[in-house]
This record gives sequence, C-alpha cells and structure tokens, in this order.
Amino acid sequence: MLTELKEKVYQANLLLPEYNLITFTWGNVSGIDREEGLIVIKPSGVEYDELTSDQMVVVNFDGEIVEGNLNPSSDTATHIELYKAFPDIGGIVHTHSPWAVSFAQAGLDIPAAGTTHGDYFYGSIPVTREMKKDEIQVDYEKQTGSVIIETFNKKDINPNQVPGVLVNDHGPFTWGDSPAEAVHNSVVLEQVAEMTYHSLQLNAENIQMSQSLLDKHYLRKHGKDAYYGQGK
Amino acid sequence: MLTELKEKVYQANLLLPEYNLITFTWGNVSGIDREEGLIVIKPSGVEYDELTSDQMVVVNFDGEIVEGNLNPSSDTATHIELYKAFPDIGGIVHTHSPWAVSFAQAGLDIPAAGTTHGDYFYGSIPVTREMKKDEIQVDYEKQTGSVIIETFNKKDINPNQVPGVLVNDHGPFTWGDSPAEAVHNSVVLEQVAEMTYHSLQLNAENIQMSQSLLDKHYLRKHGKDAYYGQGK
Amino acid sequence: MLTELKEKVYQANLLLPEYNLITFTWGNVSGIDREEGLIVIKPSGVEYDELTSDQMVVVNFDGEIVEGNLNPSSDTATHIELYKAFPDIGGIVHTHSPWAVSFAQAGLDIPAAGTTHGDYFYGSIPVTREMKKDEIQVDYEKQTGSVIIETFNKKDINPNQVPGVLVNDHGPFTWGDSPAEAVHNSVVLEQVAEMTYHSLQLNAENIQMSQSLLDKHYLRKHGKDAYYGQGK
Amino acid sequence: MLTELKEKVYQANLLLPEYNLITFTWGNVSGIDREEGLIVIKPSGVEYDELTSDQMVVVNFDGEIVEGNLNPSSDTATHIELYKAFPDIGGIVHTHSPWAVSFAQAGLDIPAAGTTHGDYFYGSIPVTREMKKDEIQVDYEKQTGSVIIETFNKKDINPNQVPGVLVNDHGPFTWGDSPAEAVHNSVVLEQVAEMTYHSLQLNAENIQMSQSLLDKHYLRKHGKDAYYGQGK
Repeated sequence: MLTELKEKVYQANLLLPEYNLITFTWGNVSGIDREEGLIVIKPSGVEYDELTSDQMVVVNFDGEIVEGNLNPSSDTATHIELYKAFPDIGGIVHTHSPWAVSFAQAGLDIPAAGTTHGDYFYGSIPVTREMKKDEIQVDYEKQTGSVIIETFNKKDINPNQVPGVLVNDHGPFTWGDSPAEAVHNSVVLEQVAEMTYHSLQLNAENIQMSQSLLDKHYLRKHGKDAYYGQGK
Repeated sequence: MLTELKEKVYQANLLLPEYNLITFTWGNVSGIDREEGLIVIKPSGVEYDELTSDQMVVVNFDGEIVEGNLNPSSDTATHIELYKAFPDIGGIVHTHSPWAVSFAQAGLDIPAAGTTHGDYFYGSIPVTREMKKDEIQVDYEKQTGSVIIETFNKKDINPNQVPGVLVNDHGPFTWGDSPAEAVHNSVVLEQVAEMTYHSLQLNAENIQMSQSLLDKHYLRKHGKDAYYGQGK
Repeated sequence: MLTELKEKVYQANLLLPEYNLITFTWGNVSGIDREEGLIVIKPSGVEYDELTSDQMVVVNFDGEIVEGNLNPSSDTATHIELYKAFPDIGGIVHTHSPWAVSFAQAGLDIPAAGTTHGDYFYGSIPVTREMKKDEIQVDYEKQTGSVIIETFNKKDINPNQVPGVLVNDHGPFTWGDSPAEAVHNSVVLEQVAEMTYHSLQLNAENIQMSQSLLDKHYLRKHGKDAYYGQGK
Repeated sequence: MLTELKEKVYQANLLLPEYNLITFTWGNVSGIDREEGLIVIKPSGVEYDELTSDQMVVVNFDGEIVEGNLNPSSDTATHIELYKAFPDIGGIVHTHSPWAVSFAQAGLDIPAAGTTHGDYFYGSIPVTREMKKDEIQVDYEKQTGSVIIETFNKKDINPNQVPGVLVNDHGPFTWGDSPAEAVHNSVVLEQVAEMTYHSLQLNAENIQMSQSLLDKHYLRKHGKDAYYGQGK
C-alpha cells in the first residue's frame, strides 16, 4: 500500500545524509496521505545506507502500525500531532543538524536577519519553551508536538509561512507541501542558522531585516504575486 | 547568437557549486558583450545540475529578452545597472555565500585586514546602506543596483580596484573582466570574509593592514608595475 | 592469536579517518579480551592507510608485548589503566578531534546542553584536572589513566553512563562495549562539543538541559526501559 | 639537474591542495640542496592541477635562475633568507591557510595550549612585528625573511624547535628537514590554530599548557630520548 508515498519518503530520507543534515540515524522524514489518513515514516534506528523503500512504516493517526515489520521512528507521535494541527502540510523532517541545534540549546529564536531567511521563512524561526517535567515523563513525543503547536498559536505564526521550529534543548522540525520540500526547508534552516550565528557574533544590535525587505523577498517567491523562477 | 559568451557564462555558473559558493539555486553569473550591448545571464530558479549552455538568456539594457525560452534571473535588473555604471567590467556574480552574507546581515564592511585581501581588493569591501521602503517596493532589483552604485560614488571607491560589494541584509555581488574572473573574486571575497571574521573575534583593535602593505600587495599583482605570476 | 579481536580493533581504527576524527596518526583504538586478560591496540605512529589487521599489537595488563613486531601506541599505559578501573568496557578510543580538544585546552567540561548529548552521555562530559609535574615526568601515560579515574571517582560519575572524558590540555578518550561503540561515542562527543561550543557563544546562561529531559533521553535509549530502535 | 629534489618539491606542492591548505595558487613549497647551494621552488602563479615536476625552478642564493623557463614564486627571496639564517632546514612552505591567517591578521602568537601543539612546536608560534614602510617598499620579499629571522633572534626561539611563524597581516611560513616535513608542519600549524582559536573563545584565561607538559610531549617525539613511533 501507498507504494508511491513510501518511495517519496524513502528518497527524502536519503537526502538527509546527502545534505549533511544528520549523523548516524539522528533524523527522520515522514509524508502523509490526507485522503487515506495515513502517515509513512522512517523506521527507528535503521542506518541510512541499509534503508530500503519497503521498510517505510505506515501508521494511522492513533500511531498504530497499519503496515510494516519494523518500529516506526520514536518521534512518530510528534509527527502525528503536527499533521493534525497543520492541515496543509504534506511532509515533516526532524534532524539534529548542528547549527539549528546550537540555537535550540541556547533557547533562542533564529531572527529574520537577511534575504536568504526571508526567501523561505516569513519571520523568526521560533524556539519552543522548555517542556515541563510531566510533559516529558508522560507521552513525551506527543507532548513535543503539542509544545510546537502551542508556540505557533501563542505567537500567532502561520505554519505555512514559517515552515520550521526549534524544540528547546533538542533540535529542528521542518515541514512542507511534500517530504522533499520539508527537507529543502531543513537545509535552508540549517544554512540560515549558520549565517545568522556569525552575524550575531559580529553585530548583535539591529540584527532584524526590515519588514519591507522581508515582505519583498517572501512574497516574490510565495503567493499569488510571486515572480521568482519559471512559473508553475 | 553570442554562442561563445553563453558558453563562458554557463561555465562560470558551474563554478559556483564547484567552489561551494551556493546552495540550491541561490546565485547567478552574467557576462556582457559591450559591442552588441547585450547581456547573457542564467535563467531564474533552474537547478545547476540541469543547466545547459543554450538555456542562457540574452537580454538588452532595458531588460527585454532578446533570445531565450526561460525567464532570466530575478536579479537581472541589478546586473544591468552595474554594467551601465561600471563600464570596464565584463562579468558579474551574485551569491548567498555564507561568510559574505554573515557580514552583510551584520551591516559591516569587510576591512582590509591582510595580504590575501590586498592581493585582490584595494581597500575595504563596502556594505551598502539599508534600502528604503519605496526602493524595495518599486523596481526592487534595479534599486539594488542603484544603492550599490551610490555606495561606490559616495565613498569614492573605484569598482575596478574593489571588485565586490555586500548588499545590506542580503549578500555579495562581485565582478571582473570576465564571468570567470568575477567568480574568482567571489571565491576570494568569501575566503577573506571567513578569515577576517575570525581575526575580528580574536582582536578587533587595529584590524586594518597598513596602507603601505596594501599598496604593495595590490600593486604587485595589478597595474603596470605588477610582477606576480608569469607576465601576460 | 585473538584474530577476531584484532580485526575488530583494526576496523575500528579505520573508522577514525572515515569520521574525520584524526589528522595523521593522532589517534588509536584498542579492544580487550577480558577472559584472556589481553589487550589489542594500534601500533604507534603507523599511518592509517598503511595499517593492516595483523599489525595490531597484543599486550598484557603489565604492558608487555605478548604478540606483535611493532611498538604499541604510546598511549597504551593509559588504555590499560582504564580497562583495569572500568570493568565493563570492551574498547577505548583516543583522538585529538578538534572540537573536543578545544574544550580540553580551555579546561572546561562539556555540559549536557541538549538531547543529542543526553542520548549518549548521562551528564556533563568531565575534564580532568591539570596533571602535576611529577605525574608528567614519571609514568606519564599511566598517570594520565589515573587522573581520568580520579575524575570519575571524585565526581561520582559512572563510566558506563558517561563513556568519555577530556584530558586537560590534551584531548578526549571515549569507551564502550566494543571498539566500534567506543568510536561511535567519540563521534558523538565531537559533534556535541561543536554544537555546545556554539550554544555557549550564543547564550552561556542556563546552558544545562533539565534533569527531566536528560533522564528521558538517556533512559529511552539505555537500560531496561529503553524503547528507541528495533529492540535487541 | 636536481631531478630528485625537483620531484620532492613537486610532490610536496601537491600536498597543499590535498590537505586543503590553499585556495587557487596561494602557496608554495621549496627545497634546498645544501651541498650545491641551490634551491628548488614552485613557479609563480601556476595552477596546481597544471603543475609538472620539471617546471620547478632552480635558483641560487642570490635569487638568480639557474634552471627553468618560468619565474620562480614571488616569495623566493623570503625562502632564501630563511635558508641562509636557519642552516638545518631542508624545506619551506608558505600558505594562506585560513586559521593561521586569522591569527596573523589579528597580530597574535598562537600560544602552546595543548599537547597537539607541544608534539610539534616547542613553545608559542610567534607572529612577527608589522613591517615598516621602507621594508615594504624596497626588497619586500627579502625583508619579509629578515623580519622573521629578527623575531626568532629577539625572542631567542630555536627554529628547529619551533618550525613555523606567522608574518603579521599576511600568513604562515613553516619549515622542516625536507619539503614534505615542512608541509606536515603546515598542516599541524593550521590545525592547532583552529583548536586554539576556539579554546580562546571559550576561556582565554590560563590558555598556556604547563611547561612540564610541553616538555614531555615535545621531548617524547624529538631528540635523543624520543620514544614515540617505531624508532628510526
């Protein structure tokens, strides 16, 4: 079942080592079939060079395995929460990419400091609050999803316009229309984190780009007035 | 038409991923035929591994497509302004190379801190002022060119001697006699940004090299008294 | 003798250049056969691309060569002390990996700042005190082992739960059930050092992760209640 | 003539790109035949991937070309001064390797902060004073050699024990028994600069290793009591 989606999720997982986003098995990609209400995700702890397309695990919105011989990623419950709360997204990525983790461990948002950021993220990439003891002890992975959603709600951020987050003291999650686009956004987030780290060291004052410049760059690539690229 | 220039521009574009100057499609190279008054530039948003020489787009000084089936780079109007204002240059490069962007986002010039810099850039590599709301909203890419030219005029910098600039909160543009030399200068700018970032962290006092040392290094490689290399 | 262990130690040594943990010959891996009371270790100063499995040197707990035509690693006496004091470990790695050395030279622990750390190290990775003049002058390599053991004893750290250490002004040692796992922990230590360095530069306040989060991550991968991966 | 030395110098030059020490042609290696009083050096400005062994240029102690069709490296006069003043050295390397340049531009010595440093350099790697206007304007490259020698004389440093230097606002020179060993020391200097930069950012207080530890590490690899490696 879902052979095509499994192949897409498998291929997107292979992009993680290709783009140097992961060490060992520290990452996972999923995709969703909204009509069937089913999620395809990487199995837990399997090395990327041993991964095959048909090892991808199919789970439903209750986290039950619908197809597959392996345990799904230990982060599956987080993915499910995000798919439930963010109805437009088609793929999710989690990594421990080092520059993004550096901000997550520092408990800091990645501010929108320049046009590279503005081309993909329409505002700061937020960090969640620290999770509470009881959230960590019971249903930790599900609660990780909840604290992400809380962050977007409280700060009134549109997840379609800011397709990524830093979980405090943990690492980034990104998403997109498809598993491949979620990986694309994960690459951008890592690159932006690296550049903005250095900008902050050089000159922490006035690190924010102007709202006009952010509007320009985000909107020339997204939405009805976009004019970047070759059209669609 | 302009088959030879298209090939040069195409080859120069391929150098961007080779020298790790770009991620995805975040960069473009153009070249100019001064006699014909025509510019050849990379098409917008096309992946580098799918690029072919005959996809290069030919535009005139009004930005009109003279030949080509694809949209030219969204930065084309910036290139045109620079070719108009800087009559000696033959090629232009724009990238989001990470060390250069780090300075651009910080809104800081890259000071001439050592001989690597002085071998190619005869003084600080300037950052432009932030662009104004109306410059961003109307004719943004053309205004990006204007603010670069303003920077060189106001500071009385010779663009033939300082073949690069940082656009504030955006990234670097470099240029040269040819598309390939413009890429060469882009590599140097990125390398110099990396080294001078670290020097600034170690010892921000007295970061400037002496004028004598700058004169020596720039002039032993450029101009009538140059003695570096094998002659020409 | 010990052909299988020699092959494991040899293969684990080859992982050091593969994971970019070493320059030249600055590193070594050993393994132990607890029943025989014999240790297999890399020969001293041999280039990794010239290394062969049967060059591995077999030594006993007194550091005497039991088999082998080459001198064992100059750090052999350190390995022996660790095998004696930490009875559960099966392999040891020493490198001069650059991020770990950066902390060692600074004389600082690597604090548990995030989940990547917590997945492998159940608390800060300690740095030893500086060694004293007489410890350096007589039996230096053995004393290096002693100061590591002293560090774990004084701070009451369980070496099975924190499988690595920084020797002050020197570099990291890591260990594990097997030579390969010791290398795995060396990769993690290096990656964690890099990320936490950057987090400290961004925000040195409150760098520690919460104890609850550390418990959760360490214990979901280790011990009887582990649920990460595919089981064993 | 000097076919064997040319091959050694050629091979040592090829190590520079292999160890990522250079960008473009920013580096050169030379070797000396002390009996003949002749120096073999890379030609100026030739790309490394076009270099051949028989392009190596032979010069005498007056800088005159004894054999070769190309101009020697523009830094030849610096090499000659060093060969004259340091009678035991057999090869010299100059690069613009980025971490070493970062210290050179900051005008700072690289302190002996740990054992990696102490294994090769018996004390701080010194930076020269800034060169004076007249030294820069007349016989610049020869004066570059003189200021290096002055640094070693004034600080009473033995160039056989500290085989490298940073020229202020410029970059590193290293040397050794042979061209290959000079490259080896250049790799070490770059690696040590990187690690000590980060240690300084973490904890600039008390960055120096103890004299006892420096003695131990330097002397276990060098001199009559060395015991590292397989003997000679």
